[in-house]
Amino acid sequence: MHDVIVVGAGVAGLTAATKLVHKGLDVLVLEARDRVGGRTLNAPIPDVDGAVVEMGGQWVGPGQHRVLGLLAELDLKTFPTYDDGEHIIEFHGRRVQTSARIPFLGAVTLADIGQTQLRLGRQLRGINPAEPWHSRDAIRLDGETFASWIRRTARTKGGRTFFEIICHATFSADPSEISALWALSYFASAGGLDPLINTRGGAQDARVVGGSQRIAELLAERLGEAVRTECPVHSIRWDGGQVLARSGSEEFVARAAVLAVPPPLVDRIAFEPALPVDHVTLRRRLPMGSVLKINVVYDEPFWRAAGLSGQFVSDHRLTNMTFDNSPQHGEVGVLVAFSEGPRATALAKLGPAHRRAAVLDDLAEFFGPRARSPRAYLEQDWTAEQWSLGGYGAFATPGALTRYGPLLREPVGPLHWAGAETATEWTGYIDGAIQSGERAATEVLARLG
Amino acid sequence: MHDVIVVGAGVAGLTAATKLVHKGLDVLVLEARDRVGGRTLNAPIPDVDGAVVEMGGQWVGPGQHRVLGLLAELDLKTFPTYDDGEHIIEFHGRRVQTSARIPFLGAVTLADIGQTQLRLGRQLRGINPAEPWHSRDAIRLDGETFASWIRRTARTKGGRTFFEIICHATFSADPSEISALWALSYFASAGGLDPLINTRGGAQDARVVGGSQRIAELLAERLGEAVRTECPVHSIRWDGGQVLARSGSEEFVARAAVLAVPPPLVDRIAFEPALPVDHVTLRRRLPMGSVLKINVVYDEPFWRAAGLSGQFVSDHRLTNMTFDNSPQHGEVGVLVAFSEGPRATALAKLGPAHRRAAVLDDLAEFFGPRARSPRAYLEQDWTAEQWSLGGYGAFATPGALTRYGPLLREPVGPLHWAGAETATEWTGYIDGAIQSGERAATEVLARLG
Repeated sequence: MHDVIVVGAGVAGLTAATKLVHKGLDVLVLEARDRVGGRTLNAPIPDVDGAVVEMGGQWVGPGQHRVLGLLAELDLKTFPTYDDGEHIIEFHGRRVQTSARIPFLGAVTLADIGQTQLRLGRQLRGINPAEPWHSRDAIRLDGETFASWIRRTARTKGGRTFFEIICHATFSADPSEISALWALSYFASAGGLDPLINTRGGAQDARVVGGSQRIAELLAERLGEAVRTECPVHSIRWDGGQVLARSGSEEFVARAAVLAVPPPLVDRIAFEPALPVDHVTLRRRLPMGSVLKINVVYDEPFWRAAGLSGQFVSDHRLTNMTFDNSPQHGEVGVLVAFSEGPRATALAKLGPAHRRAAVLDDLAEFFGPRARSPRAYLEQDWTAEQWSLGGYGAFATPGALTRYGPLLREPVGPLHWAGAETATEWTGYIDGAIQSGERAATEVLARLG
Repeated sequence: MHDVIVVGAGVAGLTAATKLVHKGLDVLVLEARDRVGGRTLNAPIPDVDGAVVEMGGQWVGPGQHRVLGLLAELDLKTFPTYDDGEHIIEFHGRRVQTSARIPFLGAVTLADIGQTQLRLGRQLRGINPAEPWHSRDAIRLDGETFASWIRRTARTKGGRTFFEIICHATFSADPSEISALWALSYFASAGGLDPLINTRGGAQDARVVGGSQRIAELLAERLGEAVRTECPVHSIRWDGGQVLARSGSEEFVARAAVLAVPPPLVDRIAFEPALPVDHVTLRRRLPMGSVLKINVVYDEPFWRAAGLSGQFVSDHRLTNMTFDNSPQHGEVGVLVAFSEGPRATALAKLGPAHRRAAVLDDLAEFFGPRARSPRAYLEQDWTAEQWSLGGYGAFATPGALTRYGPLLREPVGPLHWAGAETATEWTGYIDGAIQSGERAATEVLARLG
């Protein structure tokens, strides 16, 4: 008999467990995978001692005080994301090379992007991400897709494409799939669109020395035997004061539980009694985005000498965008490529060999023929991961937030909810995962007195 | 070793099984419930010998040649839905009593409803329900909610409310939740909006003597021991030429399978190997509507004497609408009340006693105080049914049809798909379930040669 069972050893679950253990509770963390970290995952760079690239969530930035505080506490250092040189933008059949954050796409398009951002900014001021369903325009915004919002807010084809690109990069989903209210609330939770899309000074500002999965690994090390991996929870029996979790033939009992798994995975646990119907429905309306993240390793970051940042954005390739993801001291060069939303669906279908060829073709198009000869090619299809079912995170389909949103963080008996999707600041980010774990732990402490 | 395993003994599964048995195949139907019929369900009327009311899908109408043909073959008779007298419409704070199909709601509103129907009709001609994703305007229509479509097509508040009411009644879901392309394709599959919303001459034209569940019961009787109830399929192992279905500790083997369950239930079966990711994603984007159906039994259909049809429609009550659902010879009076979409969610929350009081209050408001004293009150919350997870059927969230729609009927190895949601004519209706079962059986026959 434990005090608390935490399901899921991602950053959210481990944060909750850490806080509960600090308060003297007996906590057991059950993790389905053979590793901790959830959607953060390091991969060693072959033949470079100790160097890693991240296959999942990786960046931190100013304003994310929770993750920055935790890094300091864990004695993990950060280093700046490589952001020098010129970016390449492919947009409506044209190619622009520029160091400007927003490339010059023509005066009319730029003016339209400006007015759309202004209107977006005004709307964001009216949205409290802790309760977006109470926003003044909630019914209308939740009743339309982000595609409809873009269509009625941006006035030019270029302006609309700009926001579609941002949507793919932020949600790994197409604007047609997402509630406009979810999109706007997500932006608001990051303090606006700029902090979210910027590299320097924004959410892509810095990387963790040793890789972002170190956060979870160090938290798990401190928790020691309280963390059990390869222990997927198949069923949960609960009543007012007790939780019985089953994994295969093993049973674990506690007085409360924190469910720190992606929303669609909740539905794969058999609850007895069943979860209230509205809780089930809410999580069925929170599907995951689709993303492939690919790190391509070269002998050196050869694009730097050509004055390139390693960043491109394309409005039509299977690879949406890249970053220079080389290790801190440039021992080797790494380009990280993202394929998001509908493009990830298409890329995944190609099969391993054609996929690799398609990605390297895209890289060679922008960075030259050397890009075709990497020393390593590391890819991660988060949609194919049975314990994630997608990435970066979940989004709400239209109509869900206003009807079921208030249940996002509402406990069901002794069952409490954590996970980056339940965060009210930096929703979907590592920082949000920490906030959610802290909040769930606070709730459990109040419950158990 | 059987030839074919059919999962689900609703009308779709039983139709497929019947056709396959006729062709000489060895078929096994596995049904989770202790009964057949799926979302058709008879309930005996207490104290009236042999009389039933339907708690699920119940009506048939002209143009539904498959279900009408099957009824003839099974020697089941129909009788006209009671549709005499005046209907009551509550709309924008006014109450209208009328025998007109579309009540007089003011000249401007009526003109708006007219122009919206005209524009809808023109759009429907461009949609082939067998492949709505190829419609000329597919990307735009699938990229917006039906709420957005209503907003940009109807011009008056009254016109918009009219189409919202139709949406609730048709999909048991709010326009904010549904892809506009799904809604329009659904209408097109019924031959337009009129056949779908009309009582006399439309989809609510007639009822089955003995109740609509008789269809499934008679099909199952003929199949005899080939139908196993209380046998939920928990996992399916498959390869190119074999299917192994597990239910508890029992195993069943066949050369092919037909999955005739509501789309969200597919996700509750563990497949090995896993279903292709896009198939999983598609079904995650097909949530079920929410509906409570309530039959209230009185000593006699007392509203008839007052010149009322027993039909009301309200734009704001927890009970959206009612019909006179008395047995054929009027032995007793029955009002069937529907609570759909957001209203079902709200009504379900009240708990049994308050729910009954709320429904009877609504009925008394329109049909007088006698409505408060029924001799029986029978209610069915389809959303709370673990083997349906909602009703009347599933709908597609925005962005799903254009990206994943072509997979709706695409077999996965030896696994074939049936169910009313996969129908291209009368999608979501009993008639559509029959079409889907016939189509799946044809596919299996071609496969097994």
